[in-house]
Amino acid sequence: MNIKIIVYIIGWIMECEAMLFMLPCATSIFYHERQGLAYLIVALVECFFGFLLIRKKPTQTKFYAKEGFITVALCWIVLSLFGAAPFVITGEIPNVFNALFETVSGFTTTGASILLEVEALSRTSLMWRSFTHWIGGMGVLVFILAILPISGGSSVYLLRAESPGPVVGKLTPKIRQTAIVLYSIYFAMTVTLIILLKIGGMSGFESVTLSFGTAGTGGFGVKSTSIQSYSQFCKIVIAIFMMLFGINFNIYYFILLRKIKDALKSEELHWYLAIMAFSTLFITLNIMYRYHHIGMALTDAYFQVSSIMTTTGYATTDFNLWPQQSKTILVTIMFIGGCAGSTGGGIKVSRIVMLLKTIPKEIGYYIHPHSVRKLHFEGRAIEHETVRSVSVYLAIYVMIFAFSMLILSFDKVDMVSSFTAVTATFNNIGPGLELVGPWGNYAFFSPVSKLILMFDMLAGRLELMPLLLLLSPSIWKESIDNGKKRRARKKELAQHETPHWRG
Amino acid sequence: MNIKIIVYIIGWIMECEAMLFMLPCATSIFYHERQGLAYLIVALVECFFGFLLIRKKPTQTKFYAKEGFITVALCWIVLSLFGAAPFVITGEIPNVFNALFETVSGFTTTGASILLEVEALSRTSLMWRSFTHWIGGMGVLVFILAILPISGGSSVYLLRAESPGPVVGKLTPKIRQTAIVLYSIYFAMTVTLIILLKIGGMSGFESVTLSFGTAGTGGFGVKSTSIQSYSQFCKIVIAIFMMLFGINFNIYYFILLRKIKDALKSEELHWYLAIMAFSTLFITLNIMYRYHHIGMALTDAYFQVSSIMTTTGYATTDFNLWPQQSKTILVTIMFIGGCAGSTGGGIKVSRIVMLLKTIPKEIGYYIHPHSVRKLHFEGRAIEHETVRSVSVYLAIYVMIFAFSMLILSFDKVDMVSSFTAVTATFNNIGPGLELVGPWGNYAFFSPVSKLILMFDMLAGRLELMPLLLLLSPSIWKESIDNGKKRRARKKELAQHETPHWRG
Repeated sequence: MNIKIIVYIIGWIMECEAMLFMLPCATSIFYHERQGLAYLIVALVECFFGFLLIRKKPTQTKFYAKEGFITVALCWIVLSLFGAAPFVITGEIPNVFNALFETVSGFTTTGASILLEVEALSRTSLMWRSFTHWIGGMGVLVFILAILPISGGSSVYLLRAESPGPVVGKLTPKIRQTAIVLYSIYFAMTVTLIILLKIGGMSGFESVTLSFGTAGTGGFGVKSTSIQSYSQFCKIVIAIFMMLFGINFNIYYFILLRKIKDALKSEELHWYLAIMAFSTLFITLNIMYRYHHIGMALTDAYFQVSSIMTTTGYATTDFNLWPQQSKTILVTIMFIGGCAGSTGGGIKVSRIVMLLKTIPKEIGYYIHPHSVRKLHFEGRAIEHETVRSVSVYLAIYVMIFAFSMLILSFDKVDMVSSFTAVTATFNNIGPGLELVGPWGNYAFFSPVSKLILMFDMLAGRLELMPLLLLLSPSIWKESIDNGKKRRARKKELAQHETPHWRG
Repeated sequence: MNIKIIVYIIGWIMECEAMLFMLPCATSIFYHERQGLAYLIVALVECFFGFLLIRKKPTQTKFYAKEGFITVALCWIVLSLFGAAPFVITGEIPNVFNALFETVSGFTTTGASILLEVEALSRTSLMWRSFTHWIGGMGVLVFILAILPISGGSSVYLLRAESPGPVVGKLTPKIRQTAIVLYSIYFAMTVTLIILLKIGGMSGFESVTLSFGTAGTGGFGVKSTSIQSYSQFCKIVIAIFMMLFGINFNIYYFILLRKIKDALKSEELHWYLAIMAFSTLFITLNIMYRYHHIGMALTDAYFQVSSIMTTTGYATTDFNLWPQQSKTILVTIMFIGGCAGSTGGGIKVSRIVMLLKTIPKEIGYYIHPHSVRKLHFEGRAIEHETVRSVSVYLAIYVMIFAFSMLILSFDKVDMVSSFTAVTATFNNIGPGLELVGPWGNYAFFSPVSKLILMFDMLAGRLELMPLLLLLSPSIWKESIDNGKKRRARKKELAQHETPHWRG
């Protein structure tokens, strides 16, 4: 494994985060808060250590899938560690575990919070907290790829490892170009949203922070009641934008290229919108009795469906009080999640559709045992490898889920809370039901449970493989073995000037 | 599709069930109960209709996988319909839905009951209720195969469709021989258990009914408190026998052939025993504080683990009152279930092990992209087809589970009850948690929910495919199309004596 290049990229990630800390610093100056100092200190420390890592550019810049995954996993952990530091230093989240939980929840765009009262935080920290959503939404390595000229061909592995979905296509032949296109669309949509929310009557601070939370499909708000207290206009705008950020960004790129027909042909998009429409209608009918006006029921249903399915986690009402049927629908779409290549989490619509399509295929095997069948998705035959990896994805997903449930059961909480806590973190949503419902929080979990939930958030955002590879003994054993061999050979070379195995 | 042979086999199944009704009839005579009359009437009616179906042996006796699945699915439905009739006629379970639920639960060896007070039933009906477990445990078609000389080669599809597990091996070259061996082992073990329970102080009636429930890993008892009131000896005997009936019967066959080394090499057995041992130890430590003596805690833990993992569902204590951790362990092993080729339900240990093994394989793909890997299980490479069908199995399983949860949410019950109700029926266990806990029952569900739970029980016992094929429109469309074609050709043949397409 090319450890040098991994370290080098981590160095750049640190430089990058140090730079991103400037936003809370600026907020601090603007609002005359003293918390900005903590952010500045952390930024300088991180900048210094990052510099040590990037001082020497490795000669060998090639890397492959495994390096891609390991890099992504390590980068996200480093990001979270430094990202949590200011919370501890300012004393706003004095407990290290809680600070780390909040930061991981931010970067992974989960939005699960341990804060009992979010209003107690300084504006500086609130800005940073929401900003982590925006950074994590599109992915920080994608950002690095856009600005940093790492060796051409192999950087696709970084993009693949960080981008959600079963198949990641390059939009343009060059990775850097692809990354720039993605970030430009992301940036433009976010700015549009900020302007719309400002028009809707929000303060500048609120419109920026909530736009970050919406764009990254994160869910951190600046009030304990999430989105409930804002105007109807703002609610509808946020609902629509959550839906838009849950769509594969490739589609926007096609629209930019005026290939609108191609864009609208997307099979995943059709499923995504159909599931959303069905869920909204179902819930509207189900909760109607609680409202005076059907329009209000529809707005609340649409908002919550859009929020949960895109795994954002904003709420305009306490859906924990909704009838059981609506809650079941919400829990179901928690697992489905957004589209591949969007900022949304979950299993992803495309994976679900592929899994659904394997069912008639399997039935077909029994009806016509000798016929050859290929699954089709987005008008193309799916490669066997993709089907296999989607199936294994589900298997790993279920195993990690069960394991997390087991660990969480050691905390004395009811089963629905622990079940939805795992669901809401693993799918990067944020709020679950009961104790972790939209008006609840995650503070009561034990440190061990929080550690597991953090793992789930990272595993969910990075789609399992990076973290599994990081924890896989074989990958490290191999690296160590290779290192030993290399050292042994060097030694041997030093002993004999013309080593005997050359003779 | 060869519909004639399907109908013919269903006819034989009916004859067979009519014969099996003689056991409750005999019980009725022995205990001077009048309920036996209802059983006799149903038996005669079934015998008559069955005779109509088997009158003419079809000339074409070949059938393939799809016929196998359809036959099995239809047979089990017919069995359940006739099996439920006496409950209604005797008035002991007057509601048709409830009677059907109880019978499906019996045949599928689930053991979920709608009875508020099981003691209110006559001994005749209690005997029939437990006997359905015994019949369903090894499978009624396997029984038919043992006694009925259906065409040689293709009857393997019936065995495959009814027997649990990802791969079903023939023990002997001849299917009939295999079926006889399986039933002989089953019979011998059941008799041994009856004798042991009698020695342990049970009445003859109790020892027979509870042995049926244990052998089929069913779980119907004859008391509302399940196994709680029996002697410690009986509890331990039942716990051990549940474990034994959850083991692949091939292993007993190997032992009979004195290939004990081969038998003990079984990888699935090792996993099965390891999971059971771990769960027992874990729960013992977890519930120890509730007991005066560790031995009692161990016995209760072992009994419950053995009961739940083999999907039997007997209980010596209300495990709904256990700590959350123990409950989580129990829910986890509910999904794992017994070994393939046993009478136990669930996903099956072998499927779980195969799924677990795909994980390092998938990780391996990223570490060494070009290396060729094969999964090994039981010392052999697993065929790609098997891996695929196991993965699809999990996908279908998850989908049906989610759909069932959605339907059940229309009943106003808490989430844990509905979640464990689906878990306990789909995996053929019986009791779940909360309202459907070991001292609870399923009576409160709506008819629609009961229908879904019945579907889940059948789908779980027959391992999804038979019921899915039965519900698959394409298989019927094809049969209808073929029928139309055949009739059209016949018509044409009748019109022209020498049809023009022959010219």
